[in-house]
Amino acid sequence: MQFQISDELIEKIRFLIESKDEEELLLHLEDVHHADIAEILTELDLEEATYLVKVLDSQKTAEALMELDTDVRERILETLSSKEIAEELQEMDTDDAADIISELPLERQQNVIDEISDEEHADHIVELLRYDEDSAGGLMAKELVKVNENWSVTGCMTEMRKQAENVTRVHSIYVVDNKDKLKGRLSLKDLLTASSNANISDIYIPQVDYVSVHTEGEEVARVMQKYDLEAIPVVDEMGRLVGRVTIDDIVDFIREEAERDYQMAAGISEDVVADSNIFKQTRARLPWLLIGMFGGLGAASIISGFSSMMELFPKLLIFVPLIQATAGNVGVQSSAIVVQGLANGSLRGHIWGRLAKEASLALVNGISIAIIVFIISSYFFSTSYTESVSIGIALISVILLAALIGTFIPIILDKNNIDPAVATGPFITTSNDVFGILTYFLIAKAVLGF
Amino acid sequence: MQFQISDELIEKIRFLIESKDEEELLLHLEDVHHADIAEILTELDLEEATYLVKVLDSQKTAEALMELDTDVRERILETLSSKEIAEELQEMDTDDAADIISELPLERQQNVIDEISDEEHADHIVELLRYDEDSAGGLMAKELVKVNENWSVTGCMTEMRKQAENVTRVHSIYVVDNKDKLKGRLSLKDLLTASSNANISDIYIPQVDYVSVHTEGEEVARVMQKYDLEAIPVVDEMGRLVGRVTIDDIVDFIREEAERDYQMAAGISEDVVADSNIFKQTRARLPWLLIGMFGGLGAASIISGFSSMMELFPKLLIFVPLIQATAGNVGVQSSAIVVQGLANGSLRGHIWGRLAKEASLALVNGISIAIIVFIISSYFFSTSYTESVSIGIALISVILLAALIGTFIPIILDKNNIDPAVATGPFITTSNDVFGILTYFLIAKAVLGF
Repeated sequence: MQFQISDELIEKIRFLIESKDEEELLLHLEDVHHADIAEILTELDLEEATYLVKVLDSQKTAEALMELDTDVRERILETLSSKEIAEELQEMDTDDAADIISELPLERQQNVIDEISDEEHADHIVELLRYDEDSAGGLMAKELVKVNENWSVTGCMTEMRKQAENVTRVHSIYVVDNKDKLKGRLSLKDLLTASSNANISDIYIPQVDYVSVHTEGEEVARVMQKYDLEAIPVVDEMGRLVGRVTIDDIVDFIREEAERDYQMAAGISEDVVADSNIFKQTRARLPWLLIGMFGGLGAASIISGFSSMMELFPKLLIFVPLIQATAGNVGVQSSAIVVQGLANGSLRGHIWGRLAKEASLALVNGISIAIIVFIISSYFFSTSYTESVSIGIALISVILLAALIGTFIPIILDKNNIDPAVATGPFITTSNDVFGILTYFLIAKAVLGF
Repeated sequence: MQFQISDELIEKIRFLIESKDEEELLLHLEDVHHADIAEILTELDLEEATYLVKVLDSQKTAEALMELDTDVRERILETLSSKEIAEELQEMDTDDAADIISELPLERQQNVIDEISDEEHADHIVELLRYDEDSAGGLMAKELVKVNENWSVTGCMTEMRKQAENVTRVHSIYVVDNKDKLKGRLSLKDLLTASSNANISDIYIPQVDYVSVHTEGEEVARVMQKYDLEAIPVVDEMGRLVGRVTIDDIVDFIREEAERDYQMAAGISEDVVADSNIFKQTRARLPWLLIGMFGGLGAASIISGFSSMMELFPKLLIFVPLIQATAGNVGVQSSAIVVQGLANGSLRGHIWGRLAKEASLALVNGISIAIIVFIISSYFFSTSYTESVSIGIALISVILLAALIGTFIPIILDKNNIDPAVATGPFITTSNDVFGILTYFLIAKAVLGF
């Protein structure tokens, strides 16, 4: 049922672009959804894409531009004049337009804004640019339907139809007082069934969820999800209605947050996609590899420090990778559970209870693994009884320690208002590697007495 | 602005429950949102929570029950009679009611369905139970507003108002023919401005996105996100309109998917939360630790197999943790990028191009790390020149290999329709540990010739 972008279609479009057959191009792409236009733009090379953007109606390309990956969009915008960009922005909702402008180089931003012919639209965009992009102010759009509490139902209907022209989806009608302060909301059902000489103040619902322009995006997402809202009004410091955040922006926000956390856990520190260039990818990845490298060198120093053991009990050395892998895996598991619990609010207070639980869990897993390794090392690697005992005890201790570090670090970071997600992945793995190996050698020393 | 659940409020509610003061309880919780009632229920113990559910209006508790964690809800439902559960379900949308019923033990499901007094509602629920819960059929609700293409605008308005009573949010009005086949949709704006003796067939929009009952949830989420839809109609095998999926269910779906992928990458195989019991957590975590353990034992065999090196070049052994950590980190980074690219569709075809890119990236990172380690090992660990060379070459090779394994495995899995997310985390780390250490020793053997 969905529109499919075939290689033939792309070839056809390429051909039409090359032969500059504008008419045929417009005909071909008339009924194509802007999200599909975006996919087509991604498949074309830069020159072709720019040509297509210029040929197509800016109403369609404006929405398609919004769907593009930042990299592709940036390259296309570079080839457009300030006036051409302004025409695209004119067709966008204010929140999208502000997002696009903020991606432009500073000196171009002003030129583009100057070229926007609708002064109110330009004003709104400038206002939105002031807010942090991860705050409700940065996420909101200025487009909404609002009515004054003192209006009559009849007057309201006329005004509403006018406002609705500029709003893609109405969601809710907000009620404000003469000073623009948010008073409540109105259901479309009530409005349709109310007698036409009633006043808005008689029929509106005085309860409405709202957020402030400074509320963090994460909190906006939480509130909208918790209360199943499809739009939430945003008020300024004076309680005046200044915009609204809609659920589609929040869906994007949630997805981006999830992707960021996932990348963070994998040791990738910048927002990179498979297509990002090598320089950007190196910048995102190398720092974490260096942390791992210093951890590995730390482990090397520890092993050197126990050189007497290397001579007396060389067999113990072959289990270092086992100790290290186990410490890393346990740490990642524990930290992932805690980070996720902190993110979705399912983890409440009780830090000591949490640690006690992780500790018992670690004991269960630790003892199971220690028993298996005890048997396998004795039989297949012919370790002596005391050597096997020391490996077993070390495994249990290392798992316990790794679980506690994995639990403790994200909680501590969160309490200090640092995103606990940074603690997952290479960070936890590396510290657990080092502590794990140190613990292993210390226990071996204690048990075997060298 | 948001309602805050304080310890005092919980204490107050506890007290009112203990003194069985129904009137005061109802008064206290009258204006409280169902999502907040859910939080209060979580804070109470089972007996208190059950009492509260019985006292409150089932309209409110039905929605609160939907918000609860599965574990808590299960325990509360166990204490309710089939008739009491049926009353709650009566108040829910069909999709929510079907979700709840599917959580009940099989023998109870029939009893509860028999107790639902609204026969149509019961029929709808039974229909939804037939579908896989991750398909469009399992995600959809039966509640929607539909009109027949042959109706007049006037008749349509009356019918629409009647239907809208049962629908929380209208989103779209769907147009069907006499056989209930989906024909298109109607915008509220067009309906309000059309002349009252027009027919629906004159004004409806014949283009509408839809999915089939068998479409996978992931695909529904992709389509709704791509086209920014807030609801999408679902048709059966005959093209008949049978339900619709709304964006709030998709938001939950996206979040759950993201959490599952995140846990998978951390080596947690079942859907566990911080509060899950130890047995469940062990079942979810121990298998991955065992994979890691066997990897560690594999590494131990490899090291044993190179015992001549252990005697001749004992210094090389102290760098095993460094090799292992680097191989693991590189593998996780590469696989995360690929898994994410596959999930959001940003990674298209071109498997060889992808591998070439990862390879060049690995070379950049590998050479950087090799140089640093070459210097540090020579100066601080007094390795000989050839030893340092062999460590450096090994690092570059291991990073290259790890990147290729990390890229290749998810792509292969995806091509064979296995969720590539299983390849991340411990799975990649473990195979890279083993291959990495093997490569290290083979290169050392070749360079140092023992």
